[in-house]
Amino acid sequence: MTDRTTPPSGEDSLIARYFKPLATDPGAFNLDDDAAMLKGQGGDIVVTTDAIVEGVHFLPDDPPDTVARKALRVNLSDLAAKGAAPAGFVLTLALRSPDDAWLAPFACALGEDATLFQCPLLGGDTVATPGPLMISITAFGRVPSGRVVRRRGAGVGDRVVVSGTIGDAALGLELLKAGPAAAGLAGDAAAREMLIGRYRIPQPRTALALAVRDYASAAMDVSDGLAGDLAKLCAASGVSAAVDAARIPLSAAARALMDRGVAGIDSIVSGGDDYEILCAIPENRLEAFEHAAALAGVAVRSIGTIIAGSAVPSFIDAQGREIAFKRLSYSHF
Amino acid sequence: MTDRTTPPSGEDSLIARYFKPLATDPGAFNLDDDAAMLKGQGGDIVVTTDAIVEGVHFLPDDPPDTVARKALRVNLSDLAAKGAAPAGFVLTLALRSPDDAWLAPFACALGEDATLFQCPLLGGDTVATPGPLMISITAFGRVPSGRVVRRRGAGVGDRVVVSGTIGDAALGLELLKAGPAAAGLAGDAAAREMLIGRYRIPQPRTALALAVRDYASAAMDVSDGLAGDLAKLCAASGVSAAVDAARIPLSAAARALMDRGVAGIDSIVSGGDDYEILCAIPENRLEAFEHAAALAGVAVRSIGTIIAGSAVPSFIDAQGREIAFKRLSYSHF
Repeated sequence: MTDRTTPPSGEDSLIARYFKPLATDPGAFNLDDDAAMLKGQGGDIVVTTDAIVEGVHFLPDDPPDTVARKALRVNLSDLAAKGAAPAGFVLTLALRSPDDAWLAPFACALGEDATLFQCPLLGGDTVATPGPLMISITAFGRVPSGRVVRRRGAGVGDRVVVSGTIGDAALGLELLKAGPAAAGLAGDAAAREMLIGRYRIPQPRTALALAVRDYASAAMDVSDGLAGDLAKLCAASGVSAAVDAARIPLSAAARALMDRGVAGIDSIVSGGDDYEILCAIPENRLEAFEHAAALAGVAVRSIGTIIAGSAVPSFIDAQGREIAFKRLSYSHF
Repeated sequence: MTDRTTPPSGEDSLIARYFKPLATDPGAFNLDDDAAMLKGQGGDIVVTTDAIVEGVHFLPDDPPDTVARKALRVNLSDLAAKGAAPAGFVLTLALRSPDDAWLAPFACALGEDATLFQCPLLGGDTVATPGPLMISITAFGRVPSGRVVRRRGAGVGDRVVVSGTIGDAALGLELLKAGPAAAGLAGDAAAREMLIGRYRIPQPRTALALAVRDYASAAMDVSDGLAGDLAKLCAASGVSAAVDAARIPLSAAARALMDRGVAGIDSIVSGGDDYEILCAIPENRLEAFEHAAALAGVAVRSIGTIIAGSAVPSFIDAQGREIAFKRLSYSHF
C-alpha cells in the first residue's frame, strides 16, 4: 500500500473550510455523512423552505454577511409564525465559483445567526451553476404534538395583529434602487440606514413564537406584503377582515416619507419583505397576548378585525373610505 | 364590502395547477400554509438535501419527467443508504419562466415517484431566476431512535458490498455527449437505451434500506464515483479497503464496452451518478444481508475487504496489481 491520503476536492475543501466550523450540532455528523439527523423528541417537526436568488431577492452588491442572514432569517420568520422553536437547517448553495472574499463573511454571519437563534446548520449541498448565486434553506422547528399554528383558524371577531412596523423593507429596497424615497430622505442618513437595514437583515420574531402558539387562532409571516398576506390568511380561514389603515404600525422614517408624499400606503402594504408576524387573536386573549409579547420584547399592534365573508380584506382610511390598491402583493411571475 | 376575490398570482396559480394535486399528505397543509409538518412518531428524522442544476447535473434537453425523477431519486438514494424509510420531501424550483410544456410532465412524474416511493410532497418554494433551471429537494426519512446508519463504523475485516451495477450512468452520460462509448455501441440500441436510462433515472435502493439498517456497520450511496465514495466511507471510519476490481458488478453493456476497449475501469469507478448503495458488512452478517437483499429484490455483491490503515482504498486487478486512477471522483469545483 502506498501512503496516499485522499486529496480533498474543491467542493470538499470549501465545505471543510467554511461550513464544518458551523456544524457543531451532533445531528450534523460533522458534515461528513450523506444526511443529517433530527433527534425525535416527541413533538412535531415544522418544515419550511425558502430560496433567495441574486438579482431577484437580493442585489449583487449586497454584502455577503447580510445575504447569509437574510437567507436564514426568512425561514426563521416562518417558524416563528407557526409557533415553532428553531431546531436546525440545511443549506443549498449554488455558486458560480468558490470566491473566498464572498464565502468567508457569508459563512461567518451564517454561523453567528445560527448561534443567535439556536438554529444549527445540519447539512447541505454545494453545487456549481453558470447562473446567479442562489441560496436555498430548509429550516426545522419543534412544536408540541398537534400545536402548529396554521393560516386557517381565524374566527369572526378575532383581532388582526401585526408585530413590529410594516413597509420599511420595501422603502429600503426603493432607496437602494434610488427610487422616489431616496430623494425624500437625502438629508437623513440614519433613516436611510435603518430602512436599508430592514430590507437586508430581517428580524425574525422568534421571541414571539411561544405567544403565537399560546394565543393565536391563525398566523403567518408577512413576506409578500401585508395586504396580500392577510388575504391569504383570510382565504385559508374562510373569513374576511377590515383593517384600520391608520393603525398599521409605521417607523418614524416611513411615516416621514408618507407625510412628504414620497411613499404611499400602496407600497407600505404591498411591498413585502417585512418578515413580521401577522396573526388573528381572539378578543378575549388579546390582553394576554399583548402581555406575553411585551415580556418577549416584541411590539405588537391590533390593526383590524376578522369579519365574515369571502371578500378580500378591506383597508379603511382615516375618513372611513376603503382604499383601493393597484396590487396586493409581490409575485415572481 | 365589494365582492372581490383574491386574484391568484402567477406563482400561486402555478403551485395550484401543478403541485397541489401532489400534496395529499395531511402534513402538506394543501400547500397553502407557510410551512409543512412531520408528525412526531417517536423515532429520529433523517434529513438529506441535493440540488440539480441544468447544464451541470442534467442536460437542457433531458426530458422533464426524467429530471423530476432524478431530482427526487438522488435524495431517496441517500435515505436508503442511511437505513431510513421515506417520509416526505420539500421542493425548491428556480425557473426562468413558468413553461407549461415543461412543468406538466415534470409535476406528473414527480407525483408518480412520490407515490411509488411513498415519499409525499410536503411543501416548497418556487422562485424566478434569470439563470439555469435548478431543482433542490430536501427529503426526510424515519429511522427508529438511534438507528441511522453512518459512513463511520466500518470495521477491519468487514466486507465491502455494493448494490446493482457500477459505471452505467457515467457511460450513459458519455453516450449522450457522443463520447467514445457512443461509437462502441452504435449498433446496439437496447444497450444504449439502458445506459442512458441509468444516467437519467436512478433506481434508489429504497427496498434495501431495512437490510442496511439491520446488517451494515457503515453505508453511503455511490453518487460521485465508487472509488472516491469508498475513500470517503473509509476516511469517516478510520480504515482503508482493498477492492478486487474484477468483482465490481458490471452490466452486460458496460462489460462489452470494456472488452472492446472503449470504456476503462477509470470511468467505471470514478464516473459517478450510480446511486447504488455501498456498505460495509461484518463477515458474520454477510449471509443474512445477502438473504435480506435477495428477498428485497436487490442484487448485492461483495467486492472487497475493509483493512486497517489510512491509505486511499486500493483497487487490485486480475493480475494482483494495484490500479492507479487519474481521479477518484467527480467534483464541482
